[in-house]
Amino acid sequence: MIPFNKPYLTGQETHYIEDAVKTGKISGNGKYTKMCQDFFEQQYGFKKCLLTTSCTDALEMCAILADIQPGDEVIIPSYTFVSTAIAFIRQGAKVVFADSYYDNPNIDVGKIESLITPKTKAIVPVHYAGVACDMDAIMSLANKYNLLVIEDAAQAIDSFHVNKDGKKRALGSIGHLSAFSFHETKNIIAGEGGMLVVNDERFVHRAEIIWEKGTNRAEFFRGEVNKYGWVDTGSSFLPSEVIAAFLWAQIENIKDIQNKRNEIWDTYYDELSKLKIPSISLPVIPSYATNNAHMFYLVLQNIDQRTKLINHLKNKDIHPVFHYLSLHSSEFYKNKHDGRALANSDKFSNCLVRLPFYYELDIVEVKQILNSISEL
Amino acid sequence: MIPFNKPYLTGQETHYIEDAVKTGKISGNGKYTKMCQDFFEQQYGFKKCLLTTSCTDALEMCAILADIQPGDEVIIPSYTFVSTAIAFIRQGAKVVFADSYYDNPNIDVGKIESLITPKTKAIVPVHYAGVACDMDAIMSLANKYNLLVIEDAAQAIDSFHVNKDGKKRALGSIGHLSAFSFHETKNIIAGEGGMLVVNDERFVHRAEIIWEKGTNRAEFFRGEVNKYGWVDTGSSFLPSEVIAAFLWAQIENIKDIQNKRNEIWDTYYDELSKLKIPSISLPVIPSYATNNAHMFYLVLQNIDQRTKLINHLKNKDIHPVFHYLSLHSSEFYKNKHDGRALANSDKFSNCLVRLPFYYELDIVEVKQILNSISEL
Repeated sequence: MIPFNKPYLTGQETHYIEDAVKTGKISGNGKYTKMCQDFFEQQYGFKKCLLTTSCTDALEMCAILADIQPGDEVIIPSYTFVSTAIAFIRQGAKVVFADSYYDNPNIDVGKIESLITPKTKAIVPVHYAGVACDMDAIMSLANKYNLLVIEDAAQAIDSFHVNKDGKKRALGSIGHLSAFSFHETKNIIAGEGGMLVVNDERFVHRAEIIWEKGTNRAEFFRGEVNKYGWVDTGSSFLPSEVIAAFLWAQIENIKDIQNKRNEIWDTYYDELSKLKIPSISLPVIPSYATNNAHMFYLVLQNIDQRTKLINHLKNKDIHPVFHYLSLHSSEFYKNKHDGRALANSDKFSNCLVRLPFYYELDIVEVKQILNSISEL
Repeated sequence: MIPFNKPYLTGQETHYIEDAVKTGKISGNGKYTKMCQDFFEQQYGFKKCLLTTSCTDALEMCAILADIQPGDEVIIPSYTFVSTAIAFIRQGAKVVFADSYYDNPNIDVGKIESLITPKTKAIVPVHYAGVACDMDAIMSLANKYNLLVIEDAAQAIDSFHVNKDGKKRALGSIGHLSAFSFHETKNIIAGEGGMLVVNDERFVHRAEIIWEKGTNRAEFFRGEVNKYGWVDTGSSFLPSEVIAAFLWAQIENIKDIQNKRNEIWDTYYDELSKLKIPSISLPVIPSYATNNAHMFYLVLQNIDQRTKLINHLKNKDIHPVFHYLSLHSSEFYKNKHDGRALANSDKFSNCLVRLPFYYELDIVEVKQILNSISEL
C-alpha cells in the first residue's frame, strides 16, 4: 500500500522531548522554542519568529495585529484551506475571494486591484504547493493602496521568490506578516504546529504580548518591567516545549529532507514530462519562484477524468487525494459571496489531484505510481 | 533548592509518543486523543470531551458556542487568570467583574445577581485551587435569568461538588460548558493543553465543527456526509497526538498522582493548623466542595507581610509565588471597568502566596518549608 502521506521521523524527536522534559519546563517559550525561532530568523531572514500551536493560530495573530475590525475587507484566494479565511472571519472581517491563475492555483494578481475598496485592509497571498505568488506585483499594489500583505506560507518553508536580478528572498520574509504550518503533511513537522513571522518592526512588540495571552510577560523576563500583567487582547498561541523539541529534530535534518523531497519531485516531473499524457497538465513554476518540493500534483481536464485516475490508482493500492473545494461556494460562504464566478478556482477544485509524496517514498515506488498513471 | 513547581513524568510519556508516531498519524484527533476523551467522559460523567491546545482555547470555544456577540455581557471573577477574560473579549464581549468571598477566592455568589442585565449571556465561575464554587446557587441564578454557565475548571480536574444529600458531581460536569487545563503546573499535564467539556446536548454537534476549523470533517469520517467542507466559523483547536499521548501517560497514573498530592496538601494543612500563626489564614474548603490538592496557598494580612514571607523563604532557597492580580484594575481593563471596588479580589492579589507544590515534593521538604515559615 502506498499512502498519500507518511510523517517522517529523523529519530531524534523523542530524545529532544525527553531533554525538554528534564529541564523541568514543558510549557511554551522555553529552550527549544527559542532554538527553533532563532534558526528560522537566521536561516531565512525573518525579522521575528514566534512558534504557534497551528498555522491557523498564526493567521489569527496576523488578523489581530492587522487590527481587523468588523466590516473590514481582506482579499484571499478561494482555492485555499479554510483556515486562511476563518482566521480573519473570527475578527469580524468580510472575506473577498479572488480567483487563481488558469495554469497555477496561486492568486491571480491581475484580478486583485478591482477587488480593493476603501474597506480593504489586507491581501493574503497563499503560496500554493510552496510556489511563490507574484510578490513584486502584490507588494506594489499594497504600497499603492496602503494595505498590509500577510503571506499564508503554510506550505512554503524553504522556498524562495526570485527577483529579476536573480536575488532570492525566502517566502514568508516579504509580506508585513506571514504564517507557516508544521502539520504532519508538511515538509518539516511537529504533528500540529505553526509559526508567526513578523517582518514589519511596528508589529514586533505587540506580537509578543498577544502570543502570551495579552500579558507583557516577555518584557518582564527580559527585566524591562517590574511585574507583568494584562495589557492587551490575545490568546494562548504558544505551543508546548514538547512540540518545539519535536520540531527541532526536524529542523536539524531540513537539508536532507529537502534533498530527498526534491529528488522525488524531479522524478515525478521528468518522467511525466516524457510521457506527455494529453489529459494531464503538470505543475507550473513561474520564473520568479523556486520549488520546495512540498507536494506533487497533476491537473486533469475534468472531474470525471480525475475520479477515474483516483479510482484506478486506488485499485492498485496507491492513494492520491484531491485538494481544496472553492471556499466561495462552500455551504458557509456561498450566500455571503458576491456572486462572481471564479472559474479557475473551481477548475482546481474539480481537476487537481495530489500524488503520494513523503520523505520515505522510494524512487521505485514513484516509478510504480508513474507506471500505473501511464496505463490509464 | 525547592522550586515552586516541577512537572512530574510518569515515565511512559515518550513511550506513548513513539507509539503515536509509529501509527503514522501525529496531527490531531487520533487514537490517543480519543482514549483521553473517552476516559474523561466515563470517569467524570462529562457528556462530550474535546482536547484542545490550551484551556484558553477551550474557553474560546465556549465563547463561540455561547454565540457571544459584540456588546454581550459575561460575568467572571476579577481574581482569575487573564484567559478567563480574553476568551470572551476576543468574541466582543463586555466582561463584568465580580468580587471573591472574603475567606475564599471563588466568585461570591451573593454579588452576582445585581450584575445581571438584559445583555448578560453567561456566568463563568472559576473553581480556584480546584475548590468548587457554589454551583447550586449559580445554576439556580442561571435558570432564573436564562443564562449559560461556563465552568472555568482549569485547576479542577478530579474535584467534586457535593450536594446536600451527599451526592458528588465532578466539577466541569455541572455547567452547560466547561474548560480544563493541562498546563505544566496542573495536577495532570501535557506541557500546554486543555479540554472543552460540553454537557448541554444542544452544543455537541457544533462543538465538533468549530474544533475542526469550521468543517464537518468529524461527520465525514463517521460516514454521515459524503464529503466535508466549510460550514461554520472555528479554529484549529485540536492538539497534536504527541500532546494527547503525553497526557495519556498522566491519566493512567491519575490515582497515584492524586494520592501523593493529597498527602502533601494534608501535611501542609495539618501542620499549619497546629502552628496557629495569627497572621496566616489557611484555605477554606466549603461543605459543598472536595479538595483535589491542586495547590496549597496561605493568605497573609497585607502585602508587606507577604513580601516578608516570600523573601524569608527565598533566602532559604524555597520558592513560593504570589498569584493573580485583580483583572478589573489591570492596565488593559481599568478604564473599561465600572469603578466598583472589589476589595476581596484585591486582598487575594496582595496577600495570597502559593507554597511549592508538586508530586515529587518530599514530605521531608514540606516539613523543611513549614519550619522556615514557623521561624518568621
